[in-house]
Amino acid sequence: MNGPVFDPAFRVQLATLFGWRRDVRHFQTRPIPEPVLERLLAIARLAPSVGLSEPWRLVRVRSDTGRAQVRQEFVRCNEAALSARDGSDAGRYAALKLAGLDRAPCQLAVFAEPDPAQGRGLGRRTMPETTDYSAVLALHTLWLAARAEGIGLGWVSILDPERITALLDVPPAWHFIAYVCLGWPDGEHDTPELERAGWERRGVAVEILER
Amino acid sequence: MNGPVFDPAFRVQLATLFGWRRDVRHFQTRPIPEPVLERLLAIARLAPSVGLSEPWRLVRVRSDTGRAQVRQEFVRCNEAALSARDGSDAGRYAALKLAGLDRAPCQLAVFAEPDPAQGRGLGRRTMPETTDYSAVLALHTLWLAARAEGIGLGWVSILDPERITALLDVPPAWHFIAYVCLGWPDGEHDTPELERAGWERRGVAVEILER
Repeated sequence: MNGPVFDPAFRVQLATLFGWRRDVRHFQTRPIPEPVLERLLAIARLAPSVGLSEPWRLVRVRSDTGRAQVRQEFVRCNEAALSARDGSDAGRYAALKLAGLDRAPCQLAVFAEPDPAQGRGLGRRTMPETTDYSAVLALHTLWLAARAEGIGLGWVSILDPERITALLDVPPAWHFIAYVCLGWPDGEHDTPELERAGWERRGVAVEILER
Repeated sequence: MNGPVFDPAFRVQLATLFGWRRDVRHFQTRPIPEPVLERLLAIARLAPSVGLSEPWRLVRVRSDTGRAQVRQEFVRCNEAALSARDGSDAGRYAALKLAGLDRAPCQLAVFAEPDPAQGRGLGRRTMPETTDYSAVLALHTLWLAARAEGIGLGWVSILDPERITALLDVPPAWHFIAYVCLGWPDGEHDTPELERAGWERRGVAVEILER
């Protein structure tokens, strides 16, 4: 069987997509139409998974109560992070406005099932963390597919996994991977927000060891 | 700033890329030209990382000795997995020919630096595993960029992270994420090898909980 051949023009656009992906924090509030969301989630399922186990589990947080609880957890964790830093850093840290939690029209909690029946354990005996990685891969696939439609994604990691698992009332064994905001971005940039805010820059090159 | 707009034709091709990505096990031996590899690694660096920390660390395993040691570790871990299964499963498991280790012209070990100075700790206080996830994202970016050039990638996880870290003589704190084979595939398919081999099928749909 011959697979598709991607031409140079596609490869240039693909590199542009990677370059303009961005971790979005500022969203428009207009909702994502359901068919669009369904299409993006269907594409996310094409992600690789260990042993074809497809261990990703999604929770769509739609209720005001659910969102308020997640927001409260974010504020709590963010304050703890702030108090662990010195003053000047702390101010800049707060100014980054880390979360799109208040505006993003679509919000998903991404989990991994650590011991899925599907896949029958293949490939994860020595590295059980590969189920978590599989969920990360689905999330990244969603991220790229969304950006290709002009929809931005923001990854929120300033949360306590145990508390999120409890407050969303999912099976306690599930691993919390990320809380994700989706929506059309307010403004687009070719450099990361953390770089624009003076927080950090990309490094010069990947150091590659040889063995 | 206005970002690029991706047209419907690109989005169709992108979905095709996700659908034909594959975890490749059968490789041609002809080498990947250095400029191609350099281009792919440069694209991989566009991956998202927690706090812009870019914690991915790569080791290119080129020496016969290094490759033989990794292969030996794979065989050891694979045998341990086999002995933990019943006979019928074990035969099929062995028949999957899990590794392209003997033929893939380019082999990389991917690690994550768990406490990088870059990024200054942002976003990983409550979820230190996000540095591992960042390395997974770079690997996935490499995977997609490679496939867009017709180059296949195979992810080997049947390895013991501690032993790989030791035998490749990298800083002991680094987390081993994956061992990666790269090269032109011998044959291409639109369904996963595990599905073709009767091991597992994709599920019917993603179950999405609502909260």
